[in-house]
Amino acid sequence: MTDAPNATASKKEAADLAAITHEEIFAGHLGGKLSVELSSPLETQRDLSIAYTPGVAQVSRAIAEDEKLAKRYTWTDRLVVVVSDGSAVLGLGDIGPRASLPVMEGKSALFKKFAGLDSIPIVLDTKDVDEIVETLVRLRPSFGAVNLEDISAPRCFEIEKRVVEALDCPVMHDDQHGTAIVVLAALNGAAKVQGRPTSGLKVVVSGAGAAGVACTNILLAAGIPDVTVLDSKGIVSRDRADLNAVKADLAERTNPRGLTGSAAEALTDADVFLGLSAGTVAENLIASMAPESIVFAMSNPDPEIHPDLARKYAGIVATGRSDFPNQINNVLAFPGVFKGALDAGARRITEGMKIAAANAILGVVADELAVDKIVPSPLDPRVAPAVADAVAAAARAEGVA
Amino acid sequence: MTDAPNATASKKEAADLAAITHEEIFAGHLGGKLSVELSSPLETQRDLSIAYTPGVAQVSRAIAEDEKLAKRYTWTDRLVVVVSDGSAVLGLGDIGPRASLPVMEGKSALFKKFAGLDSIPIVLDTKDVDEIVETLVRLRPSFGAVNLEDISAPRCFEIEKRVVEALDCPVMHDDQHGTAIVVLAALNGAAKVQGRPTSGLKVVVSGAGAAGVACTNILLAAGIPDVTVLDSKGIVSRDRADLNAVKADLAERTNPRGLTGSAAEALTDADVFLGLSAGTVAENLIASMAPESIVFAMSNPDPEIHPDLARKYAGIVATGRSDFPNQINNVLAFPGVFKGALDAGARRITEGMKIAAANAILGVVADELAVDKIVPSPLDPRVAPAVADAVAAAARAEGVA
Repeated sequence: MTDAPNATASKKEAADLAAITHEEIFAGHLGGKLSVELSSPLETQRDLSIAYTPGVAQVSRAIAEDEKLAKRYTWTDRLVVVVSDGSAVLGLGDIGPRASLPVMEGKSALFKKFAGLDSIPIVLDTKDVDEIVETLVRLRPSFGAVNLEDISAPRCFEIEKRVVEALDCPVMHDDQHGTAIVVLAALNGAAKVQGRPTSGLKVVVSGAGAAGVACTNILLAAGIPDVTVLDSKGIVSRDRADLNAVKADLAERTNPRGLTGSAAEALTDADVFLGLSAGTVAENLIASMAPESIVFAMSNPDPEIHPDLARKYAGIVATGRSDFPNQINNVLAFPGVFKGALDAGARRITEGMKIAAANAILGVVADELAVDKIVPSPLDPRVAPAVADAVAAAARAEGVA
Repeated sequence: MTDAPNATASKKEAADLAAITHEEIFAGHLGGKLSVELSSPLETQRDLSIAYTPGVAQVSRAIAEDEKLAKRYTWTDRLVVVVSDGSAVLGLGDIGPRASLPVMEGKSALFKKFAGLDSIPIVLDTKDVDEIVETLVRLRPSFGAVNLEDISAPRCFEIEKRVVEALDCPVMHDDQHGTAIVVLAALNGAAKVQGRPTSGLKVVVSGAGAAGVACTNILLAAGIPDVTVLDSKGIVSRDRADLNAVKADLAERTNPRGLTGSAAEALTDADVFLGLSAGTVAENLIASMAPESIVFAMSNPDPEIHPDLARKYAGIVATGRSDFPNQINNVLAFPGVFKGALDAGARRITEGMKIAAANAILGVVADELAVDKIVPSPLDPRVAPAVADAVAAAARAEGVA
């Protein structure tokens, strides 16, 4: 029903976005995108005596006596560090920590904009797993939560696992779980529009990197048993001898029909294609899928298949781009997930909290669902508060708060 | 000439400050004293496309090709990290990183307020010298300068030396050099009021910790040869067998008259007393100093001798407290020193830059100097810009920019 106006907006917006110049982008980054500000005035000698010496000594002494008071009287309780080693930045690959900084600043800005959380980028001049974990352990008293970002697979899996174990605070690798949460929300949305349950869907996940692995895991956890994963060599199956530990584990838990071969074998009669690599998918493969198929071509900036082409065959199409309908963007998840976890004082982010987040994202547009609106817009201000409330409730229910 | 109004203001201010309650102080710290804000709006899809994907990829790619562009297109060029292990916090001692955070947040707030620099507190859960240095090396791409803070002596000397060597950016342990800069400015101011050169002054430095060592060094560098240092055991002299490496080095470079014994031997006929420990000094020792003596009783919150008592004997008295005239406070130095160093793109902070800072602090009140105004007020907005300009000029002149 919102088809026409949306399409119009999209076209106008696409024209606007296409008109963004190189100069505008660099001007928008001059001096960086963040600033640190004072939460209260520091104008008079009296202000100085409260916020700094001698007043501050009373607060420091109180925290020395009871460390839990640091949550109440410092900014750390609401502070998310966005941590990267710059090893897998957007589609640019291993460009290093300095070059990753504009992305991390942008992420910190989104935390503030959508969840009101303070956030600072921490980029590390090491790619060593032990050193990254150790550094975050040493920095622990400086922050309240860790958003790992743009760290390459398979290192990202071990780093996240070890940081989660080492720290008593919420930790999430967003490229994995932020993506997984939004994909689950969008898939639920698509199935709801089509009036069928997700549990019967045959899903093909293209990509066995950070996002592919996490999406597979959340789909299995959400009760979708028929998931088949593709990597650059074809179907991830038990008969493959070339799999690393992460993929070997995937082979054990996915592909219930025991498929082997290439993308063609996986996609024939499949219901869902989830594009989570920087690759492409041929038109004839999309054509070979079951009727009313669901195609999420999420590679950015170039989708695995152009959405206009995919729509010739698929019932519902989504991309990662803002200039087409159904934009699947992590910003729908991470601000609210961290806000909810911090609101609840959660010590970790569980699978249950992630599924609660996915449900909350979809809940925001439950009455507006359509073929071209299977998820809310990334700028929808209702999303982060709804996600935060759901995540906090799940944390309390699971007793991780 | 400004004697009477100042005294009145001081008394009123003292009453105001005395009236600050425990509740007001804790209320002023609720949620911490800092926030991260966006430097540009993030309201529309277009804003998002410039500041985040896809636009940000162009900026990241440009930095990947030329790392120097990170200074221009990220916040790091103006970002000072305030780093502590919480081992020597104010007069509270080793209270740990979490309890030190309110002080570090206050410091970051002062950087913003007086120099417009962004600043974040980084508190470390380690006191190991190697680990602290190593952590800052790993974090290097995240910031533009390092303010080391409240790290105990003698570890602070080695940590600062090694961090300066390891990083290609301004690094300063403020408890050492911020204090030294302001003390030099104040001593120059006092001598100017009295119409005598500083080079002939007999100076006694009470305290051989971070501040005592740095003050001694800057006085020697500024051409004041007769400096005698006291520690808790008495005069730091070559005949002492109990000195650590730092104090043994001091013994070589100070005490030109070869004094031995206690504070009494040092202070008899001395011109200047610099109190830089948490100790006290007896009234009769101050009475034994030369006529028109200069007494800086800087211990906080309790000066080594009450200023009213010191004034019975001394020509000029200063303290670290805001409720007496002549407040000697590091905030006169560090915001401008770091701003000047960053403005000039300096790779380090040299002795010359520190002496330039001291001269600039005094220059602000050159026409207002009086017995009760030997330095500007810590809230004087003219100070930081003047210090920054002088420090940047010195950096360029020395070729460290």
